[in-house]
Amino acid sequence: MKKKSSSLPGRLRIGILGGGQLARMLCLRGWELGHSMKVLSEHESDPAAQVTRYWHQGSPNRPDDLRAFAREVDVLTFESEFFEARLLQKLSADTPELQIHPSPQAMGTLQDRWPQKEALVTAGLPTAPFMLVSSADDFLAAKKNFPKGFVLKKRTHGYDGYGTHVFRQARRAEWQTAWANELWIAESFVPFQRELALLYTRSTNGSFVSFPLVESLQREHRCDWVVGPLRHKRLRAFSKKVQTFLQRLNYCGTIAFELFDTGTELLVNEVAPRVHNSGHYTQNACYKDQFHYHLLAITGEKLLPVRLLTPAFCMVNLIGNGRSNLQFPTGHESYLHWYGKAESRRGRKMGHLNLLGTKAEALRAQGLRERRAVKI
Amino acid sequence: MKKKSSSLPGRLRIGILGGGQLARMLCLRGWELGHSMKVLSEHESDPAAQVTRYWHQGSPNRPDDLRAFAREVDVLTFESEFFEARLLQKLSADTPELQIHPSPQAMGTLQDRWPQKEALVTAGLPTAPFMLVSSADDFLAAKKNFPKGFVLKKRTHGYDGYGTHVFRQARRAEWQTAWANELWIAESFVPFQRELALLYTRSTNGSFVSFPLVESLQREHRCDWVVGPLRHKRLRAFSKKVQTFLQRLNYCGTIAFELFDTGTELLVNEVAPRVHNSGHYTQNACYKDQFHYHLLAITGEKLLPVRLLTPAFCMVNLIGNGRSNLQFPTGHESYLHWYGKAESRRGRKMGHLNLLGTKAEALRAQGLRERRAVKI
Repeated sequence: MKKKSSSLPGRLRIGILGGGQLARMLCLRGWELGHSMKVLSEHESDPAAQVTRYWHQGSPNRPDDLRAFAREVDVLTFESEFFEARLLQKLSADTPELQIHPSPQAMGTLQDRWPQKEALVTAGLPTAPFMLVSSADDFLAAKKNFPKGFVLKKRTHGYDGYGTHVFRQARRAEWQTAWANELWIAESFVPFQRELALLYTRSTNGSFVSFPLVESLQREHRCDWVVGPLRHKRLRAFSKKVQTFLQRLNYCGTIAFELFDTGTELLVNEVAPRVHNSGHYTQNACYKDQFHYHLLAITGEKLLPVRLLTPAFCMVNLIGNGRSNLQFPTGHESYLHWYGKAESRRGRKMGHLNLLGTKAEALRAQGLRERRAVKI
Repeated sequence: MKKKSSSLPGRLRIGILGGGQLARMLCLRGWELGHSMKVLSEHESDPAAQVTRYWHQGSPNRPDDLRAFAREVDVLTFESEFFEARLLQKLSADTPELQIHPSPQAMGTLQDRWPQKEALVTAGLPTAPFMLVSSADDFLAAKKNFPKGFVLKKRTHGYDGYGTHVFRQARRAEWQTAWANELWIAESFVPFQRELALLYTRSTNGSFVSFPLVESLQREHRCDWVVGPLRHKRLRAFSKKVQTFLQRLNYCGTIAFELFDTGTELLVNEVAPRVHNSGHYTQNACYKDQFHYHLLAITGEKLLPVRLLTPAFCMVNLIGNGRSNLQFPTGHESYLHWYGKAESRRGRKMGHLNLLGTKAEALRAQGLRERRAVKI
């Protein structure tokens, strides 16, 4: 990709919508590669706003802010799929010289669970049985259709358990009339043995790479730890279908698949069209990490296969407890990634620890032990 | 180390004197660890000035700039040993709560080749024979003392061949009267088989680690490439002496030793009391790199042994040719680190490539090949 004329040092001017930890880690990697990394976010204290001279205050959902920011960059990307896709589509139409990756079209499809599910089914990727729910009647139909229980999920803006309601068979569940103002899908419970995750990156030039398969544990709807690499007899076939899925969407960038391993097959639970918490282990376990590949992909580079540098790895999240006097252990073996958030809040993702070694089980035990010494 | 009360996100406020690529890479690593990274440098376009919200314009050698900057940080460090040590000593005396690492005393000793040599000799670390030169008489004595030739080096502010003059036996060399205004040492030529380099880090808590031994090639007095890891039968004994050397200086932080391998022994050529070009390979080849260890050391952490993640590695420098239309290859295997300098100049260090693999020789060949595709 050719550099636009620019008086700024750096190779390309890359703008990120959003200022959280994902934007921050993208920024840090982008600087390493020599790009000029710019951030549009609301608060000066945002994690990504710290790590660049080119922080722009504003909201990615406010047309004027978005347009002003877009004028300062060659390539636009985002750390969350929940920005207004229509706004980005209009921006793309109005400024054809601006590269936006992943495309607003792909983001629009994947940010809504309903077309996301449809696209998965079309590509032959197995998912849990599901149905649309927008009324009390639909809700009762869901109870009937999914007798083992189901999850009611907001079609958009759900993450880390927000916008999710669980209905088990045993419990008498009530439809809340306020829910009729939202769009929902109901997803059947899936008896699974474990939760897995998979990252892929696809470049604007069409090249495609997969990252190692990992197991993750969700606690209170939030990722708690990740270990890997894992094998799975369905992996190769699954990845082939993902490649088709991404081709059809003309998707560019890193994308995360959260999966259920039912013992016999890999079911897609959720897709996140961005860099993802389940891939933070790549920062230390891989030669080039998920952020690096995302940046290569959105700047049109040919992607070479992902190289794993260790027999096993583990990532544990550091979740806030609302302390004001933070304490970190000294002499710990794990690799600390700390997001620099302005304050610790209960349940907030504050950082993570990566560990490399020969046995995933031992690393997880060590990671959990080292985490206990972090008082946040 | 306790965090001072601060409204800023981040664990500690770390200030770096200087805004070049070493400061930039320190900054990026510091952000990863969650520290608030601040930079004092002269130009807005400096590589490190890009990668932080907390860039302060000014000169580390101007007392007012330095004092104002120091008020904003908990720990002060530097990317070059050529700032005014006396200014830093005064700052340290005036503000005892401020941590400065390495200490201004250690910096003062090591920034001047004469006390540096004395400290090396005292610790039993072998160096090339040397003598002070401050007049034409001294110069003639040097010619007599070192009949195989010698190098005249400015006692301070010499790097990458600046402030260095070579006198071979065959050439009729003349003393230039202007030189009498400077302080010099003359160093005997040493017949060596190859040049090596070694990094160490020592923490304020006394813990000490060594990095792998590497071979480096100097071209036009500038590092061209580095490969490793190497073995050497004198390595263990050498490192033991370095530990004593650093203890005596009460040195804290990363430090680089450039060495001559004479075939029988390791002779110290130069010492740089900071992170160093010969250690850039650690960014990809080691679990935690030289910048990471420097930051752990200056914030009082206990250091665990350095872990190498690959059987072999190579680093090649990207030296500017003064082009304005830069070109980078796509789909290259090497890991690009680009410093984001405002313009390419002939002989300027613009970035570097790291490569990991199983054979150092093959990596070097590949690195040199991939470098040829970078047009800068």
